[in-house]
Amino acid sequence: MSPTLPRVTPDDVILTGDRTTGPLHLGHYVGSLANRVVLQDVCTQYLLLADQQALTDNMGDYLKVRANVLEVALDYLAVGIDPAKSTVFIQSLVPELSELASYYLNLVTVARLERNPTIKEEIKLRGFERNIPVGFLTYPAAQAADITAFKATVVPVGADQIPMIEQTNEIVRRFNASVDAPVLVECRAEVPRVGRLPGVDGQAKMSKSLGNAIPLSASPDDIRDAVKKMYTDPQHLRVEDPGRVEGNVVFTYLDAFEPDANALAELKARYRRGGLADSVVKKQLEERLQETLAPIRARRAEYAREPQAVWDLLKAGTRRARDTAAQTLAEVKGAMGLTYF
Amino acid sequence: MSPTLPRVTPDDVILTGDRTTGPLHLGHYVGSLANRVVLQDVCTQYLLLADQQALTDNMGDYLKVRANVLEVALDYLAVGIDPAKSTVFIQSLVPELSELASYYLNLVTVARLERNPTIKEEIKLRGFERNIPVGFLTYPAAQAADITAFKATVVPVGADQIPMIEQTNEIVRRFNASVDAPVLVECRAEVPRVGRLPGVDGQAKMSKSLGNAIPLSASPDDIRDAVKKMYTDPQHLRVEDPGRVEGNVVFTYLDAFEPDANALAELKARYRRGGLADSVVKKQLEERLQETLAPIRARRAEYAREPQAVWDLLKAGTRRARDTAAQTLAEVKGAMGLTYF
Repeated sequence: MSPTLPRVTPDDVILTGDRTTGPLHLGHYVGSLANRVVLQDVCTQYLLLADQQALTDNMGDYLKVRANVLEVALDYLAVGIDPAKSTVFIQSLVPELSELASYYLNLVTVARLERNPTIKEEIKLRGFERNIPVGFLTYPAAQAADITAFKATVVPVGADQIPMIEQTNEIVRRFNASVDAPVLVECRAEVPRVGRLPGVDGQAKMSKSLGNAIPLSASPDDIRDAVKKMYTDPQHLRVEDPGRVEGNVVFTYLDAFEPDANALAELKARYRRGGLADSVVKKQLEERLQETLAPIRARRAEYAREPQAVWDLLKAGTRRARDTAAQTLAEVKGAMGLTYF
Repeated sequence: MSPTLPRVTPDDVILTGDRTTGPLHLGHYVGSLANRVVLQDVCTQYLLLADQQALTDNMGDYLKVRANVLEVALDYLAVGIDPAKSTVFIQSLVPELSELASYYLNLVTVARLERNPTIKEEIKLRGFERNIPVGFLTYPAAQAADITAFKATVVPVGADQIPMIEQTNEIVRRFNASVDAPVLVECRAEVPRVGRLPGVDGQAKMSKSLGNAIPLSASPDDIRDAVKKMYTDPQHLRVEDPGRVEGNVVFTYLDAFEPDANALAELKARYRRGGLADSVVKKQLEERLQETLAPIRARRAEYAREPQAVWDLLKAGTRRARDTAAQTLAEVKGAMGLTYF
């Protein structure tokens, strides 16, 4: 697949990452992982394993959160994230982030957080109403800490997350104004131009909890089964009928995974004209997915055999991340005069 | 003066402290400082210079917050707090507190915080309405971190602060239940039985911002002037008239500062009968205040001449406090499985 990259320059610093609530899937791959593999050669990149953030609404399930730190790290390594190029780190081991967030909480009002459309939507989705864990409401301040600690200039996000980035920049401006110095750096949201990969059932979002995801560690059989179950054009009952390509999950996936654009255009034309069986198109998609996932699966299995080596990589990344975050925190506290000895 | 001490045992651990928004005054002395001087010989005592907490509603005035760390420390030393017995530390230099608080935020709902009567009252007092800084709303979680980090068992508070202690214990129970281990320790509020010292103008609360306070560093002239201005019985117009002792600010102060209970009882009886001039009673109070404050002022001036020595004491206390807080944090994170390397 050819990712459609955010526009970055060598001077940019990217901060992105994943909540460690489950292994990653093809949707993550298309939406962000593939980009990260390319971007790590272009600019500075920090990748956050967000265990602490995952706990904001998984406090009762902390063992899951903990266990998936390694799973997500394996996914990163499997797709080609290079820890020598990208700084991969564990959020809960960078306490400077909590400390920064605690100061940022003074720069945001409750009303402002409650107006945040992303938070509003999530509160509705999760049925919290007024019983929102405070850590969930205050998450934008924590995210601002994650971003600003590394002076990130670019944060790749879905369109629904843009208000979070605006909140971060509000905090940046407010902090800089209150200490009258350009300590913190504003960032820009980069929304990937590639559409979100739908679930194999055609639902808008691929998600482990919806049971419509293909994990990056899927076996060849899992992949074959997933493609078999995949929704096509419900009106395309006989092979000779014309078929619809738009909204056809198999073609949406081919858009992401078929590298030969001309061949794909021709395939679509044949499908539209009629005479092309779903099974043929699915066969082609399955091949592409098997090709894409085979090396990922192999690399994942290789790293999984040596978990200690993975922990060592994370340890080194976390140390690098802490150094940078500590430097920013020192500047923030220094600007407020909170340096005593 | 004879403080009415909270009931503590040698096994108790006290956590208390002050926001560093201004130097301390006689009201602090009567309400808590005098107790602390005695309690430091009875049990373990941690004294928090709450600069970080002061910032929650003083972000625009951080220089004041910073400057008053030294002022409050001087007040502590002046009244007889012994840094070898009490651990005096600077909150912003113990980042473990922010980290603990960040996890506690997941254990409290927004609705629960908004129901907290202390927070409700403060929100009304400060006219915040919905424009509450988040850091102000979430302050009970931060306070829970301050208390639990030291496994404090006793927190001396005013009656209005009892809901804050209940909130802390709720967090303790919820955390321990969620990790199924008695990691955190519940505490009890101890409300001093001595009444709050009124302002020299008779207002219920002595407060620097109300301009009715006698600071611990008051000069002999300041003390004389303050007593001169002090409210007595407005009906006591002529010396020969009977006077009221109840609600008479001068007698309320004598209750706190006259060590000779029999002499004070006789003085009150004479005032009630009539024939005792306000000026005589004020003269006696002034003498007691001068006696009380003279050694405090002298010690304060002595320490103030060597600020570096004070900083060194705070540095050592802060290091001790960090060690304890880091130990608790390690247990908290360990219980959640957040130990990776």
